[in-house]
Amino acid sequence: MPLILKRMQKIEHIGIAVSNIEEASKTYEALLNSKVYKTETVASEGVITAFLKTGPNKIELLEAAHADSPIAKFIAKKGEGIHHIAFAVHDIKAEVKRLKDEGFHIINETPKRGADGKLVVFVHPKDSNGVLVELCQDIIE
Amino acid sequence: MPLILKRMQKIEHIGIAVSNIEEASKTYEALLNSKVYKTETVASEGVITAFLKTGPNKIELLEAAHADSPIAKFIAKKGEGIHHIAFAVHDIKAEVKRLKDEGFHIINETPKRGADGKLVVFVHPKDSNGVLVELCQDIIE
Repeated sequence: MPLILKRMQKIEHIGIAVSNIEEASKTYEALLNSKVYKTETVASEGVITAFLKTGPNKIELLEAAHADSPIAKFIAKKGEGIHHIAFAVHDIKAEVKRLKDEGFHIINETPKRGADGKLVVFVHPKDSNGVLVELCQDIIE
Repeated sequence: MPLILKRMQKIEHIGIAVSNIEEASKTYEALLNSKVYKTETVASEGVITAFLKTGPNKIELLEAAHADSPIAKFIAKKGEGIHHIAFAVHDIKAEVKRLKDEGFHIINETPKRGADGKLVVFVHPKDSNGVLVELCQDIIE
């Protein structure tokens, strides 16, 4: 694999925890001057999502699907706000290995299916100055 | 101006508040597999910054330059973590007008000089679900 591929490719999206995704969608449509192009519920993660594009990047709005959702807990603790940064990678397994070798703790070593047609892995925020980092790779089926 | 220019162009950078910028630089160099390409102190903002690239986007690490720095206050209140999202714009004054017309509150209506050769404006986080939003435009001199 060329060395250039063995790194984060770009910010794929920023995940923002919100209390009311319909209202937040209107807010972010006005802010970005761009329409929500997809909404999706990811039952396994307990989230309802809405995506907007901004050039090569996306904003993912996240509302808790139920009271036990990680997003409900996040908002109860910290209020609405930025929840995670997701970086696009070409080969998620190779990146997980590279990051483990660098000493990062991976929350789920086996990639799982996230929103928007992605395989995702999370890096523990204790290793990245309080920032929850997601890696995501397109699912090619 | 073409309509396509009257919106956010991309995520220019994510600002991350850190306690120790030297240690955080090593962490993010390992995370992104990319070197810090610039460090800069912005005295007017009370911050020491370090920038890394990830494709078309950047990560800006922010350490407080003194105890009264907004970054010191942020960390005291919330701990280390994501401080703001900055979007690139072509015409910052036109974007400020557009956002004001949409009802957003602008913290500094007159763009000020930020890090990395940019004119910057901040949008109040109360209008964007707790997210501090920065607009930035390249300074052309």
